[in-house]
Amino acid sequence: MPNDKHIASVFDRDLEAVQAHIMKMGGLVESAILDAARSLEQRDEELATTVRNRDLAVDELELLINEEAAKLIALRSPAAGDLRTVLTVLKISGNLERIGDYAKNMAKRNSVLVQMNPIEGAPSDIRRMAQAVELMLKDALDAYIKRDVDLAQDVRVRDGDVDQMYNAMFRQFLTYMMEDPRNITGCMHLHFIAKNVERMGDHVTSIADQVIYLVTGEIPTDARPKHDRTSLMAGPKEA
Amino acid sequence: MPNDKHIASVFDRDLEAVQAHIMKMGGLVESAILDAARSLEQRDEELATTVRNRDLAVDELELLINEEAAKLIALRSPAAGDLRTVLTVLKISGNLERIGDYAKNMAKRNSVLVQMNPIEGAPSDIRRMAQAVELMLKDALDAYIKRDVDLAQDVRVRDGDVDQMYNAMFRQFLTYMMEDPRNITGCMHLHFIAKNVERMGDHVTSIADQVIYLVTGEIPTDARPKHDRTSLMAGPKEA
Repeated sequence: MPNDKHIASVFDRDLEAVQAHIMKMGGLVESAILDAARSLEQRDEELATTVRNRDLAVDELELLINEEAAKLIALRSPAAGDLRTVLTVLKISGNLERIGDYAKNMAKRNSVLVQMNPIEGAPSDIRRMAQAVELMLKDALDAYIKRDVDLAQDVRVRDGDVDQMYNAMFRQFLTYMMEDPRNITGCMHLHFIAKNVERMGDHVTSIADQVIYLVTGEIPTDARPKHDRTSLMAGPKEA
Repeated sequence: MPNDKHIASVFDRDLEAVQAHIMKMGGLVESAILDAARSLEQRDEELATTVRNRDLAVDELELLINEEAAKLIALRSPAAGDLRTVLTVLKISGNLERIGDYAKNMAKRNSVLVQMNPIEGAPSDIRRMAQAVELMLKDALDAYIKRDVDLAQDVRVRDGDVDQMYNAMFRQFLTYMMEDPRNITGCMHLHFIAKNVERMGDHVTSIADQVIYLVTGEIPTDARPKHDRTSLMAGPKEA
């Protein structure tokens, strides 16, 4: 059936175009994560403003990808397997948009944090966490392009480390705040940022889940592995 | 073209079945929001456990809706307008799943909060916020079913009130923590919960946005109206 063959390859070409936009979006979001963390550590308001402004490009890419995916479905009427791929693209672009939003929010808090006494160590802890998440994202997108389930599984496992880093920071923030009330406002903002980085990790994990679903047809059973234990933490003994 | 007519009505029937599942999911999530807030206010651990356990049904409905939507696309090859409707269904079920997750997380923190000194007023403030969000969700889903743009716009505006409530709580938490370090851990958990309720509101707003997009073909330009101003708050004068 040469005609079917023709239709299939047109689908593949269109899909590749959409995937190229996903990769571009991924690249922008990776930069946003790293730059937001760097702006925090170096108290660099200019860089923070750049991060905030660049988020618009991420949002526009999401809309573009959604339109392209919808057109692809409408024009090519893909069969079940191909359809699953297109739907995965939509999920992934949604996750990337959320991660970009978190990076933007992180950059936003910079302008209030620069007015405050620095909380020793916290900005570099957050930067390390952000770097771990950025590497996870790089690998999750790599796993998507290569349809590599093992790499996707690896990303899922590493999200546990990010959660541990967040838990340690939560505990430390409580201690700092109890030691000196002047730390309270700063710690509230930094906790907020740390939690957002932890959430970015969850969204990266969700991308890895999509890769596994795409290849195996099954969403990993422990849907999102959760290691945020702060909901069970009564905190250090109170003063 | 009687055949086209026939295909169209089969599509409509299938779509109605998917929409019925969206409504069911919406109902479960609405209960989860209210019950999670009530369990917090009444320090009712049993109710909190119920909320946590019921989230599984929400997650299962999301998977079911995704499968149904994919099948609908594959079998009925809907035209552009119908396709947009199906893609909207996917977005909405994704939003509902996230809101359900936030309610579950809220219920999780109950078990640590019951061990602590109550923070006067905060649980009932959170309950009021949660009620506002639940009503927004009810209206957003109503707007979806009726394709009612005005009602969807109204939901978007009300999200601003929820953001204001959150901002006021943030300020109050800072004050409580500075007044007495014994309030710090409790306030950190309550702030976390308040922020999650505010985020639920954002997801409801995103459902309202989808309704507007579905009817008008355009996403509202101020994509998500944001009134969380805490990123700019230096907090009360520090001790």
